[in-house]
Amino acid sequence: MPGLIFIGLGLAGDRSVTVEGLDCVRRAEKVYLESYTSPLPMGVKERLEEASGRGVVLVERGFVEDGGRIIEEAKRGVVALLVYGDPMVATTHMDLRVRAEAEGVKTRLIHNASILSALPGETGLHIYSFGRTVTMTRGGGVSHTTVYNTVFENLLRGLHTAILLEYDYSTGFSLDPSAAIEGLLEAEADLRYGVIDGETFIIVASRIGCGGQSVVGGRVERLRGVEFGPPPHTVIVPGRLHFTEVEALKMVLKIGGDEVSDNSERIVRLARRMVTRYVEKSRSALDRARGRCSGDERHELLIENAECYISDAERFLNQGRDELAVLSIGYAEGLLDSLRLLDQERFGDIWR
Amino acid sequence: MPGLIFIGLGLAGDRSVTVEGLDCVRRAEKVYLESYTSPLPMGVKERLEEASGRGVVLVERGFVEDGGRIIEEAKRGVVALLVYGDPMVATTHMDLRVRAEAEGVKTRLIHNASILSALPGETGLHIYSFGRTVTMTRGGGVSHTTVYNTVFENLLRGLHTAILLEYDYSTGFSLDPSAAIEGLLEAEADLRYGVIDGETFIIVASRIGCGGQSVVGGRVERLRGVEFGPPPHTVIVPGRLHFTEVEALKMVLKIGGDEVSDNSERIVRLARRMVTRYVEKSRSALDRARGRCSGDERHELLIENAECYISDAERFLNQGRDELAVLSIGYAEGLLDSLRLLDQERFGDIWR
Repeated sequence: MPGLIFIGLGLAGDRSVTVEGLDCVRRAEKVYLESYTSPLPMGVKERLEEASGRGVVLVERGFVEDGGRIIEEAKRGVVALLVYGDPMVATTHMDLRVRAEAEGVKTRLIHNASILSALPGETGLHIYSFGRTVTMTRGGGVSHTTVYNTVFENLLRGLHTAILLEYDYSTGFSLDPSAAIEGLLEAEADLRYGVIDGETFIIVASRIGCGGQSVVGGRVERLRGVEFGPPPHTVIVPGRLHFTEVEALKMVLKIGGDEVSDNSERIVRLARRMVTRYVEKSRSALDRARGRCSGDERHELLIENAECYISDAERFLNQGRDELAVLSIGYAEGLLDSLRLLDQERFGDIWR
Repeated sequence: MPGLIFIGLGLAGDRSVTVEGLDCVRRAEKVYLESYTSPLPMGVKERLEEASGRGVVLVERGFVEDGGRIIEEAKRGVVALLVYGDPMVATTHMDLRVRAEAEGVKTRLIHNASILSALPGETGLHIYSFGRTVTMTRGGGVSHTTVYNTVFENLLRGLHTAILLEYDYSTGFSLDPSAAIEGLLEAEADLRYGVIDGETFIIVASRIGCGGQSVVGGRVERLRGVEFGPPPHTVIVPGRLHFTEVEALKMVLKIGGDEVSDNSERIVRLARRMVTRYVEKSRSALDRARGRCSGDERHELLIENAECYISDAERFLNQGRDELAVLSIGYAEGLLDSLRLLDQERFGDIWR
């Protein structure tokens, strides 16, 4: 039956294609290999031709983006498009699939490993503890800020971030891990959320699954400027670490225990810091105000109310209901501050 | 060289093993196939034996958890452990790897597709828009709450959630997608964050990559109670949808346009809802209070302060500084409410 099959090559190319994928190549009338989403290992096309006994045509971005010829051919016979990793992670592939289906061409995917499914195994980090993935591109500015914010949001929830690095097939450019680290440090200097500094523990995974792979972990101050060799690379900023993750990092990756640190500990939710500080401040003000209200019932009622709301703030914080905690402590402060505003002589110094 | 190789079978078993994986099986002195992390298709062991010409030993959880025999054998020769999907996603596999390395056994992974890398391609959802993944287990309570909270946190950031469903190899039990949907609805009835109701658009992906796969999308009211056939299944709650994602859902999955909706729109940050409501309420109270302070300077000073903080709250909200917005509106409320507490006769009804 005619149609278009997207076949994932996995991480290594001809060695990592699946048995089913190779069978499909053998039976396809036309076989294309796209070369623009990730650097292909040398000689993959030739080795795939040898293994399948079929001619493989190397195609560039424009050919897949246009897609007209692929779709026309897939109306008459089986067309295989070989892609690096798992198919469809790249938007150009999904776009081609959508247009093919719209023209009545049946499509099918042969799945394979992607760098994102491979990282947990190679690093020992739990897959369930990864947050959103992000790509860093050249040029700094917005790209660095986006990556930085994603790491920050993931760390707030204790999650790990995998940062993929730009690859530009047309020039062969690929963003270096050291450049990515500098990008994060620049964003830190600008935004100052406390996401990254010399002490932050990071991991650089290079050439996973495709020969000569390396996974290196350590503090930023030690890894910045290091030469990690040819692409592809991924930089990981781990979040909260389970003890089994720490064990795997030490044992499997031989990462020194003094290098491994929990990056999420420093990132305490803003609300949490705010409420803790204001609760303390308000309790002192409350004590002082109480000493000065000398039996005035209305003042005592107000102070009692303020006290309740300070306790509420602490309780909400412990329940993780941060917004309500902030609202309560703000309200308590407002009540107490009204005393100062309305009777400067008696209550003017309650905040000191 | 002796050692332990973890070989991912991908999603289909013998058909989805990679060329390199199959070569490793052929060269291994001992080949184990674990059967407890996911339901294996019928006859996989036999077909793997036929394809590789090697005997394959089916092993259960206890054998891998203990691991003593595997590690001893891997000290003397090459041992292959075949696992479903991509190796190391399961903690028992990583634990075995850590212990093997601790005993000086070299380990290696042959990667393959996992359900998490396959989902974007099969659904058309962008991989970068997935948040944390979570597993739902039987028994409700804590498990349902955890899943519900993960969906909520992902939706707050506009992200999709993949919900994996419990599989218990010893009894053959696997959690049904309909049970998972009911679990989410129960958690909603309990927690009321507005995460899910009959209108919520969800996707159920069944048997991806392993024959007879189906991907169905639609509103909860239509999908609840539907029979989705044999496992494995994944339930996806999509977040904010890019127009290319909507297009793929309509075209590739043939999901009706009226069924597709953006689930993140309803989830406005709690802080945002809170501040908007309280700003309105405080402005009315402020107007009433002003009408009653009849030239009292202290009261006017207090009201002026309250007004500043109400404006601050709005400004902070527009800047995305939610915590400061909540703190400010809480403070303004406290100030205004002190009037009521201190002078019931004049200000008792400012909140109405």
